[in-house]
Amino acid sequence: MPTNVYDPPALERGTLRVTPLGGLGEIGRNMTVFEYDGKLLIVDCGVLFPEEHQPGVDLILPDFEPIKNRLDDVVGVVLTHGHEDHIGAVPYLLKLKSDIPLIGSKLTLALVEAKLKEHRLKAYTLTVEEGQEEQVGPFDLEFVAVNHSIPDALAVAIHTDAGTVLATGDFKMDQLPLDGRLTDLRAFASLGEDGVDLFLVDSTNADVPGFTPLERAIGPVLDQVIAKAPRRVIVASFSSHVHRVQQVIDAAAANGRRVAFLGRSMVRNMTIAEDLGYLHVPDGVLIDYEKAKDLPDDKIVYMSTGSQGEPMAVLSRMANIDHAIEVGEGDTVILASSLIPGNENAVYRVIDGLTKLGANVVHKGNAKVHVSGHAAAGELLYCYNILQPRNVMPVHGEYRHLMANAKLAQDTGIPAENTIIAENGTVVDLRGGVAKVVGQLALGFVYVDGSSVGEITDADLKDRRILGEEGFISVIVVVDAATGRIITGPEVHARGFAEDDSVFDDVKPKIAAALTEAAQSGVRDTHALSQVVRRTIGRWVNQRLRRRPMIVPLVIEA
Amino acid sequence: MPTNVYDPPALERGTLRVTPLGGLGEIGRNMTVFEYDGKLLIVDCGVLFPEEHQPGVDLILPDFEPIKNRLDDVVGVVLTHGHEDHIGAVPYLLKLKSDIPLIGSKLTLALVEAKLKEHRLKAYTLTVEEGQEEQVGPFDLEFVAVNHSIPDALAVAIHTDAGTVLATGDFKMDQLPLDGRLTDLRAFASLGEDGVDLFLVDSTNADVPGFTPLERAIGPVLDQVIAKAPRRVIVASFSSHVHRVQQVIDAAAANGRRVAFLGRSMVRNMTIAEDLGYLHVPDGVLIDYEKAKDLPDDKIVYMSTGSQGEPMAVLSRMANIDHAIEVGEGDTVILASSLIPGNENAVYRVIDGLTKLGANVVHKGNAKVHVSGHAAAGELLYCYNILQPRNVMPVHGEYRHLMANAKLAQDTGIPAENTIIAENGTVVDLRGGVAKVVGQLALGFVYVDGSSVGEITDADLKDRRILGEEGFISVIVVVDAATGRIITGPEVHARGFAEDDSVFDDVKPKIAAALTEAAQSGVRDTHALSQVVRRTIGRWVNQRLRRRPMIVPLVIEA
Repeated sequence: MPTNVYDPPALERGTLRVTPLGGLGEIGRNMTVFEYDGKLLIVDCGVLFPEEHQPGVDLILPDFEPIKNRLDDVVGVVLTHGHEDHIGAVPYLLKLKSDIPLIGSKLTLALVEAKLKEHRLKAYTLTVEEGQEEQVGPFDLEFVAVNHSIPDALAVAIHTDAGTVLATGDFKMDQLPLDGRLTDLRAFASLGEDGVDLFLVDSTNADVPGFTPLERAIGPVLDQVIAKAPRRVIVASFSSHVHRVQQVIDAAAANGRRVAFLGRSMVRNMTIAEDLGYLHVPDGVLIDYEKAKDLPDDKIVYMSTGSQGEPMAVLSRMANIDHAIEVGEGDTVILASSLIPGNENAVYRVIDGLTKLGANVVHKGNAKVHVSGHAAAGELLYCYNILQPRNVMPVHGEYRHLMANAKLAQDTGIPAENTIIAENGTVVDLRGGVAKVVGQLALGFVYVDGSSVGEITDADLKDRRILGEEGFISVIVVVDAATGRIITGPEVHARGFAEDDSVFDDVKPKIAAALTEAAQSGVRDTHALSQVVRRTIGRWVNQRLRRRPMIVPLVIEA
Repeated sequence: MPTNVYDPPALERGTLRVTPLGGLGEIGRNMTVFEYDGKLLIVDCGVLFPEEHQPGVDLILPDFEPIKNRLDDVVGVVLTHGHEDHIGAVPYLLKLKSDIPLIGSKLTLALVEAKLKEHRLKAYTLTVEEGQEEQVGPFDLEFVAVNHSIPDALAVAIHTDAGTVLATGDFKMDQLPLDGRLTDLRAFASLGEDGVDLFLVDSTNADVPGFTPLERAIGPVLDQVIAKAPRRVIVASFSSHVHRVQQVIDAAAANGRRVAFLGRSMVRNMTIAEDLGYLHVPDGVLIDYEKAKDLPDDKIVYMSTGSQGEPMAVLSRMANIDHAIEVGEGDTVILASSLIPGNENAVYRVIDGLTKLGANVVHKGNAKVHVSGHAAAGELLYCYNILQPRNVMPVHGEYRHLMANAKLAQDTGIPAENTIIAENGTVVDLRGGVAKVVGQLALGFVYVDGSSVGEITDADLKDRRILGEEGFISVIVVVDAATGRIITGPEVHARGFAEDDSVFDDVKPKIAAALTEAAQSGVRDTHALSQVVRRTIGRWVNQRLRRRPMIVPLVIEA
């Protein structure tokens, strides 16, 4: 929560207002709202994945509160690329208003539509490509090719009379990309010549010195590992990383092996990518998983999900001997993927499990089988120098990433007062080349849990943390409504608690005595009696067992 | 749990039996039992720190079960060095039998004794040093200097007529250690000449290629960072890492700054280290924390705990503005420490919090301020070649580390059949130069939680995980014992659950109807009635809300 909440002034005509709703101070749920002339344009609408202090949460959405009453003013949602942290919240936005148009590249929209289908939604879409210009309400949009760890990513320049904003989305500047589709620095240069008033720039790797290595440097490593593999090869990566999968397919084909996709999202995304021409599979290389089992072990590469140790994904199930493919001696497993912070223990458990089964496990810790999808510090410096933007607002990153990115901007000569370190909900107004912070909204986390959206609260999560760390003790007492006399109980039950329930035999008479005393002094209210129970057993547990479980007193009148 | 449990045969006279109770397949709770001629020698007795799937657990102990009835036969516990994963379980062992002698170096024993004092225990101790030989029961012990991330670490050679075992403890081979105390390769060579029959060797970094950099390479980096720091400097590291702290003190002194220790364990350990001559503090450099506050900001370095993001340690509290030292603009924070897998999110939260307060945060991700304490693959190869042991049993590591270490042994020419990949509880007999696996004990995790030891079970942890992910719903119904008729209820309460309790209004009549039907068909038993409640609400919650909380039905007779 921001420390310093204040309302922005009414938006003046001719001023562009920029309000990030997500993605600042966090890696995920990227979403920024642009307002001009009474209309809203949204760039990206992603989800954030929960951390360990948010147990049981499936997804975290941006807080739509500031736009909930203005959905009729939304002229479109630009989706820069097809990753979950940029498109994952679209179904939840469309559930509020289903006819908001989605604007994006061919692959991006195909992935969004597959996702919407799972939610039984259909959307109005506008497919765009690099170089294309579109007027969307009062916003003149210009799309610029960028490369990233998914094909067909776009940056978007937003022109209004208030000035020009360039939002990169996620990007890097691979100078030899597999598909030849460079981040278009000529377009950046041209935008820079004309003047970029505000630059919203990906900060994910701003604290990584130097340059992100080439994606194509991974191919020869995959080739070598597959060439040496005596039996089956299983490669795990992100299910949207088309170029990584392309390199696996090429390395497999070069070594006379066929490839079978494993995992629902891998099959779905690669089918889309091949259909649309982003993935190129030589004839006869792909094979259905069911048929792959009949091939000799040294003739197959399985391309699977689960590179982050997700418990239900293919790779974890293999490690737990809970998958039809039984990994064994001589098999090779390649984790051609990053290791997202927080997933380390899960991933190492998978590596250990597979090693124990006899597999040779190759991962980024022992081979060059992964490169990042984000521009490192060296690349960002190029960007700043080519664009020379008047104002910079680093986005997509935790606070340290935003700070590191602002520092890079300043190193290239952008004044410190023109580099805006914003939070989610920071309201920035742009006019006449001047960008300034004019407000700070109070935004929250919107948790998706099962079929509930936004119903679980931080208080619920705190309860879960206590329950998960300490368990609970419930005490049930049935009392006579008129006299307060105990009819039944106290019964004491504990779950997730170290002791046998018999340990409570000791405290039951104390609870009964405390209740009797309270009843004798005239207390009848069950809530007040519950508090007596809570205090009595709480103190006892704390002193006797040095524990602080949740205490759930249930005093019932009969 | 090992898959293949079988009892070893009775131990033959003249055979040495080696049984690791902890530290294999995990990083922590190192403990190995040696049996010869009816007597037991223990090497190390450490704790393991819990992972996220073991919520609320404070510590995990080795399973003492195999020696519980043989404590009278234990002739001593050799402690190789003073880290928690080698000494932390000593108090729990001594609580079973308080007069088991402890054998270790001066610093190691001092740290153990400080720990025992907190448990109100005192121990019999024997202080040894490198080069020393001691007969302990039927075991002839010979202590060998090794270096590690704590001073005064020892390897131990165990000679019996059955053969010679060398156990390294944790070690690396820093060739220019700060204290000049090299891992004694001359002693290794001499042991090798005489013949090492079984080599128990640290595997922690066996999968890291190359060589661990020199500890002293960190000094100049610390010096540069401190020299450039405009205001206060706060350095966080492990509270037992004497040489790291030494380098901080030296860099502080070189820059005209004084040093204050922060955090209970830092103060305690550094007091011990200085008293015993392991830490050398120039006159007038140390200053009490209370007095340090009066110094100018550019004249102080705080040396603190909390480098792993532990929520109650100094550094986390600073990041949360919950410490007397309010970190602000111009302050420099150095995390001169490793990043233990599983702690990433907590550490990054601390880094982010401090950055947000204005501090410049230096850590191993952006500067060379940490080196490991364990031998990497290159160093291990030296060891194998100098020792040429007949048999090798990699210890101290997860499965992948043990495998990587065995592979290194084999690369130097040790036959695969002589490299033993053991688990906790694997029983290995050594006689006449032959080591073989003769049994596999079933050992468990012993959880410490508050004042309870070994009372919490894996089932309790499973309950906690469910509670922590999903919360619980309790349903209370008071029924007439004779008729089964409902007197009060159903009352439904939920905690850690997404919905408001009013959502249950819908299901209460269903529960009442199900109970009435059961009562009418003659069911009276409260357990059976509870199951009716559980099924009714469980199905409803799952279908209606797509959730699977713990259901706690409480049917009470009155």
